[in-house]
Amino acid sequence: MTEPRPFPAQALALPGPYLLFLGDTVEPGYAKTAFGLRDWAPERCLGEFAIDGATVSTGLPSMTPAEARAAGARALVIGVANAGGFIPQAWQAALVQAMEAGLDIVSGMHMRLRDIAAVRDAADRLGRRLVDIRQPPPGIPVGSGRKRSGQRVLTVGTDCALGKKYTALALARAFKARGLDADFRATGQTGILIAGGGMPLDAVVADFAAGAAELLSPDADAAHWDVIEGQGSLFHPAYAGVSLALLHGSQPDVIVVCHQPGRCGMLGHPGYALPSIEDAIEMTLALGRRTNPGIRCGGVSLNTSRLDATDAAALLASESARLGCVVADPIRGGAAFERLVDACLA
Amino acid sequence: MTEPRPFPAQALALPGPYLLFLGDTVEPGYAKTAFGLRDWAPERCLGEFAIDGATVSTGLPSMTPAEARAAGARALVIGVANAGGFIPQAWQAALVQAMEAGLDIVSGMHMRLRDIAAVRDAADRLGRRLVDIRQPPPGIPVGSGRKRSGQRVLTVGTDCALGKKYTALALARAFKARGLDADFRATGQTGILIAGGGMPLDAVVADFAAGAAELLSPDADAAHWDVIEGQGSLFHPAYAGVSLALLHGSQPDVIVVCHQPGRCGMLGHPGYALPSIEDAIEMTLALGRRTNPGIRCGGVSLNTSRLDATDAAALLASESARLGCVVADPIRGGAAFERLVDACLA
Repeated sequence: MTEPRPFPAQALALPGPYLLFLGDTVEPGYAKTAFGLRDWAPERCLGEFAIDGATVSTGLPSMTPAEARAAGARALVIGVANAGGFIPQAWQAALVQAMEAGLDIVSGMHMRLRDIAAVRDAADRLGRRLVDIRQPPPGIPVGSGRKRSGQRVLTVGTDCALGKKYTALALARAFKARGLDADFRATGQTGILIAGGGMPLDAVVADFAAGAAELLSPDADAAHWDVIEGQGSLFHPAYAGVSLALLHGSQPDVIVVCHQPGRCGMLGHPGYALPSIEDAIEMTLALGRRTNPGIRCGGVSLNTSRLDATDAAALLASESARLGCVVADPIRGGAAFERLVDACLA
Repeated sequence: MTEPRPFPAQALALPGPYLLFLGDTVEPGYAKTAFGLRDWAPERCLGEFAIDGATVSTGLPSMTPAEARAAGARALVIGVANAGGFIPQAWQAALVQAMEAGLDIVSGMHMRLRDIAAVRDAADRLGRRLVDIRQPPPGIPVGSGRKRSGQRVLTVGTDCALGKKYTALALARAFKARGLDADFRATGQTGILIAGGGMPLDAVVADFAAGAAELLSPDADAAHWDVIEGQGSLFHPAYAGVSLALLHGSQPDVIVVCHQPGRCGMLGHPGYALPSIEDAIEMTLALGRRTNPGIRCGGVSLNTSRLDATDAAALLASESARLGCVVADPIRGGAAFERLVDACLA
């Protein structure tokens, strides 16, 4: 994976390989940390572990913590990113079981592992590490709005959990495959786990969120590209403020708008319809011009994972014609995705 | 002043009356906490105290901490709200001096008083209280986006520190003067000091900022009005995310756009021009429709404090004609302000 450039408090030394913990999750959108690690850091993922009630699976081998430890695992990674970032009481026994089997615990939740008495006590008793990766570094400044050197692309979305991280990871990989100097910049717990560093943007105190985005993507050579993982959606009733701070602080030259065809209501807020792709483009450009008047839309990324190949190809073509811009699915790749890369770099 | 309805962790018991501390401030915009207390809680303000370099004054009697203590003061209130909310080292001796004179310290800065060794040590040695009012309550949920009962007006701005709090305070007072059931809802340190409670919105972790705004303004009777203090500006390169979270979480029925004529660049970010009032109205309504499709603009509040009465009246009239809506200066009051109240309640 892309190795981020160092910046304060960014380096993480995580104990791997991992057993991915799915809790009792029934909503695939909330297991995105597990899916992200499976897809982008497979060499660090040995298996998955769930408790009663879970219906989500990564497809990796199901293992108990003891089996995973015997296979070489060193940590249980909480693979769920629920709304609010909390660790339900129903998970505590499984976390303790993992520590008793010899695994450390890695979490990207807002709730701190050490703040859960049963987890803290077990870690102390067993000598296990508790690693909370959603901890912003100290000393983040307020945003300055100063224009930075280098080039930046930011993925934005019509909702949460529909492809912003995958699109950024795929673009960063494609930029590097073309010989460009590029970095993937992680802004959420899954991206940080994949990249080994980044900025947990939604865990920053609100006044400093734009400043945190500025810190994540510092001045660089004129030809350098930062590919920045988006967060939330400007249309999300809970998280739009995070999205706007990230947009302003990133001051992207290029945005790629991410969408999942067929998703009707916002994840966890079904009373809220998704914006149209056109509205998402227009609003992002209107707001993004504030810190980068040259902002432009490089194209649209569609998550067509629920379609077969024929339907997906037809949809990408029809949406491209309808919207008048490049539309691709980075996970399917192909010529459409190469055109999206071209359009971002144009 | 308006007494906020109780909600979790909102009640503050502050030691008064106050000596207002101005530090070494030379920018009046940063001394807004001192000015706000002078204007809206004068019965609690005995005097002011500054250190070398300060050029800002509230007009209150200048007192040493010992003189203020002798006059009955019980606390030194940091009257400055600088960018980043930090307490410069140059202020530390004055804070210690105040404690030695018998005063507690009240601060609305991001930096915690107890995190400054010299301040903490003096407080412990002298038995003084250190009160940090910019501490959000624990357990804030993520925003739900659920429509709440009751009616809400939110003040928004073309920039920071130009009248959003004063406008909200004046509207709440006017609503009550008309016999309406209304509450001023404070979202910043100065408003919280004035009201005795509220939500320090910019100190909330970004993911929970909209949820904090929802918590601040709970379900109420259909005829009840919450008058919510705005924060920052949707056009501010550092704080727009806070403003958007507050807009979404407040789900206002009515906005009042606040502006200071003659201000060219954003406070602390002079390279950023202020948006036009029209653009601020349009953008706020476009974004605010997401959580309240019925949002409307009640009018414009101009801070004409730098104009004489004749020029101010002429400007209010010409801007009203130009913009096609009510334009008033709540501090000057008069018929224009009564029309603004009418328009909000219409």
